[in-house]
Amino acid sequence: MQRKSFGNMQCPIARSLERVGEWWSILILRDAFYGLTRFDEFQKSLDIAPNMLTRRLNALVEEGLLERHLYCEKPPRHEYLLTPRGRDFRPVLLALLTWGNKHFAPEGESVVLLDASSGDKVEPVLYDVARGQPINEKQYLIGAGPAAGLAMQERIARKQGK
Amino acid sequence: MQRKSFGNMQCPIARSLERVGEWWSILILRDAFYGLTRFDEFQKSLDIAPNMLTRRLNALVEEGLLERHLYCEKPPRHEYLLTPRGRDFRPVLLALLTWGNKHFAPEGESVVLLDASSGDKVEPVLYDVARGQPINEKQYLIGAGPAAGLAMQERIARKQGK
Repeated sequence: MQRKSFGNMQCPIARSLERVGEWWSILILRDAFYGLTRFDEFQKSLDIAPNMLTRRLNALVEEGLLERHLYCEKPPRHEYLLTPRGRDFRPVLLALLTWGNKHFAPEGESVVLLDASSGDKVEPVLYDVARGQPINEKQYLIGAGPAAGLAMQERIARKQGK
Repeated sequence: MQRKSFGNMQCPIARSLERVGEWWSILILRDAFYGLTRFDEFQKSLDIAPNMLTRRLNALVEEGLLERHLYCEKPPRHEYLLTPRGRDFRPVLLALLTWGNKHFAPEGESVVLLDASSGDKVEPVLYDVARGQPINEKQYLIGAGPAAGLAMQERIARKQGK
């Protein structure tokens, strides 16, 4: 994929995108949450070329989202497990799930989030726990954090002036 | 970018990724939430090649995430505004923001979410409003929805068996 590196931008969204690299990486993370751990499991699930899968798995290990474990010594075989950083990606996947179900499932929902004890369907909502309310666009704004450089401060000020 | 089309997969995450197409699209949506509307504003913000920007904006319009409006007749000039479907993408961006701030901001946070009235920093949490609790990995599972085909049912059953 030809693109610039976003890693040196201050924006945390750009930095996150830099880390997950491309769609395959997000789908590999999704499958890791489904419990897949082995190369051949990912390959079968994604129908992805082996060299591409190797590259994406290596990148996810380098970025600290997956850990490689030897589960068989002869012959050497590895499995890939989510790290805490990888597990923290789950809200992004659930937000994508929610958006996809709302807008791109005309035949009905194929995948839903369930409460494990009751089996009830759950609608995940991005929430402000301290104030006890959903995060809507009117009341919640993007602001400059303590590490914001001048360019970032100007970008944010421009938005707030609109 | 060379990749398969994920659109025919049943997974709503894959379908969502198909719609936002690539990193540039996500950063264009981010900038649209910052209030940018015009071609030259996006180009300046992203430092993206004009032909690439044209392609990504057209794709976002085709997918129903942005609407193109004529704001000047002579010469014809368009602006790009978020549709309701585009606005619904905001939780994905905020989830990426939160993840990036937690894991990829060693120098401190440059961009934060604020409560507009108090100016307090807000940590967005994916929440189960009905049960009044955050969505954690233990209690909330992925399950098959009513439209799940056999392959999807098997995928989900395999996870729940683990």
